[in-house]
Amino acid sequence: MIVGVLGGGQLGRMLALAGYPLGLRFRFLEPSDQAPTGVLAEQIRCPYDDHAALERFADGLAVATYEFENVPVDAARFLASHVPLYPPVEALEASQDRFFEKDFFRRLGIPTPRYCPVGASDDVVPALAETGYPAVIKTRRMGYDGKGQLLVREPANAAHAWKVLGEHPLLVEEMIAFEREVSVLAVRGRDGHTAFYPLVENHHRGGMLWLSRAPAPACSESLQRLAEDYAQRVLDALNYVGVLAIEFFERQGQLLANEMAPRVHNSGHWTIEGAQTSQFENHLRAGLALPLGDTAAIGRSVMVNLIGTLPDRRAVLGIPGAHLHLYDKAARPGRKLGHVTIRSDDPMALDRSLKQLLSWIESA
Amino acid sequence: MIVGVLGGGQLGRMLALAGYPLGLRFRFLEPSDQAPTGVLAEQIRCPYDDHAALERFADGLAVATYEFENVPVDAARFLASHVPLYPPVEALEASQDRFFEKDFFRRLGIPTPRYCPVGASDDVVPALAETGYPAVIKTRRMGYDGKGQLLVREPANAAHAWKVLGEHPLLVEEMIAFEREVSVLAVRGRDGHTAFYPLVENHHRGGMLWLSRAPAPACSESLQRLAEDYAQRVLDALNYVGVLAIEFFERQGQLLANEMAPRVHNSGHWTIEGAQTSQFENHLRAGLALPLGDTAAIGRSVMVNLIGTLPDRRAVLGIPGAHLHLYDKAARPGRKLGHVTIRSDDPMALDRSLKQLLSWIESA
Repeated sequence: MIVGVLGGGQLGRMLALAGYPLGLRFRFLEPSDQAPTGVLAEQIRCPYDDHAALERFADGLAVATYEFENVPVDAARFLASHVPLYPPVEALEASQDRFFEKDFFRRLGIPTPRYCPVGASDDVVPALAETGYPAVIKTRRMGYDGKGQLLVREPANAAHAWKVLGEHPLLVEEMIAFEREVSVLAVRGRDGHTAFYPLVENHHRGGMLWLSRAPAPACSESLQRLAEDYAQRVLDALNYVGVLAIEFFERQGQLLANEMAPRVHNSGHWTIEGAQTSQFENHLRAGLALPLGDTAAIGRSVMVNLIGTLPDRRAVLGIPGAHLHLYDKAARPGRKLGHVTIRSDDPMALDRSLKQLLSWIESA
Repeated sequence: MIVGVLGGGQLGRMLALAGYPLGLRFRFLEPSDQAPTGVLAEQIRCPYDDHAALERFADGLAVATYEFENVPVDAARFLASHVPLYPPVEALEASQDRFFEKDFFRRLGIPTPRYCPVGASDDVVPALAETGYPAVIKTRRMGYDGKGQLLVREPANAAHAWKVLGEHPLLVEEMIAFEREVSVLAVRGRDGHTAFYPLVENHHRGGMLWLSRAPAPACSESLQRLAEDYAQRVLDALNYVGVLAIEFFERQGQLLANEMAPRVHNSGHWTIEGAQTSQFENHLRAGLALPLGDTAAIGRSVMVNLIGTLPDRRAVLGIPGAHLHLYDKAARPGRKLGHVTIRSDDPMALDRSLKQLLSWIESA
């Protein structure tokens, strides 16, 4: 039984590592010859929109999925005409445009920050009048890891936003004075069954996810239920299959949806060691119409991304409870090269290990 | 950093799955074109004693190991002259001959059942006089999973042993009225540091490992320490590096060594989910001079081998706490096709899940 994956990055790599024990085989479609999946599975190296290659890729697949949400929708739709593709193309589409995404949340009654689309240079300042200051101006499409974003505190800052962000359609968003950012990881099977992981607390650096704590500390049951309710609306609206991540701003017991990712997600990496079933295994189970696995946490986990440079491997492996995950990628500033999850049943021990880890990362 | 592995069976497969997250790459040398590692790593397909192929295999390896203890010692020695090979060839040698192995245990003061080597047909009955009845007659070499063994209860049964077992040198062993069989998994790093997993209780069927419970129920601290002491003697005597398994018969608080395996071992598969660090990761850490990982158990685990046929995958994945591991091997009677580990913090829940699993396996 072969699973096809569009994209051969670290998410694809971790899908394969979770899927081999289930007896699955993998085939990746990926333009790069240096992809993290290159050493451990079959690759078809070509652009995503090469239809002839997509047909070769689809040949004999039990199911296909994607690990990269900027896959062209046309390519995904073409693939979906040959083989079952999950999550559905509609989810990909909704998540690729920040304006459509916000509108989609609103239609489902999921609160979001105020927002306003911008189609031309002259529309920027009027849009800011609607959202207020400070605001974040984002490109509508192709943004990830904080790329394609600009913070503006006053009208003067906004003058060049159109140019700076590449003269593409933009979205102006109210900047929320949130208490913290949390994310929910949800999974829905082909039979409509759903399961939810405990909420995760996320910390960013330079616009990229840097550290996640799971389960999110001091998280009330009602907050968990609120997040699950919102995620359930998205899953049902899209007749979704697979893992879905939604990032929220938490403010005074409310959750405002920031964005969603129709795939396994960086804020769910802790589930490999920290949950009964990992997000990767559950994504595969969902797509293959297998029963979903238990999403309960095992103790507490902290996940820290390794960005740009790697700390000493010996040092990291010497930290109690630390699990190293390297993606076999060449080092480059701002690039996610790996992550470390520390899992422990003892919160004090977890904190001690985290301190050690952070000091090794900082000295790298 | 490439790790070379002699043998491409399920143990090699699980080594690779544990090693990819550490950023390692893998190369397997394996005669079969249907090996479980074929889909997830580079293969060199050739016989183990092909020196030219061994040289190609060794090229660029950081370290080599083996996952199959019947690798020819000459091949291992040739490989070790090109690249660091762990565990040491002496361990391979000691474990390949049941008589040498027992003598080796005895020299280290580790108790064993009574035993007596047999070199010719006429020596069988005199040897049995030394061990007493019932006894087990085993081929000295190339035995595994209960193959090459014969139980004799009286002299008349012994007459044809020489012929039945292929006219090879034999070992006659006293059959022990043991209470249970347990195994210890030990690991020693290149710096001489050692770590030990909790003792495992093993149950066999048709001479093959069928079910392991870890940690072994009702296991005293003194029994654990006794097993660790014996394992430590073997590790030190061989200047061992990597994971070592020793199987013991437990009788009245004593441990009698049955056999050892200088490699990762079936009775350690539970460590993937059930221990802080798996035996596979620790074997790799040891060989690469990385710090050893924590060997403590997380809750309780039961591992059940899937032999000959596979139960329904959906049914197994629906069992609370069950983790499926398939080896991507064609089904054949008596063949290990996979295993299931059930892990839980609650012994009652564990038993309920085990009952479900066994009923699915029996109806397969």
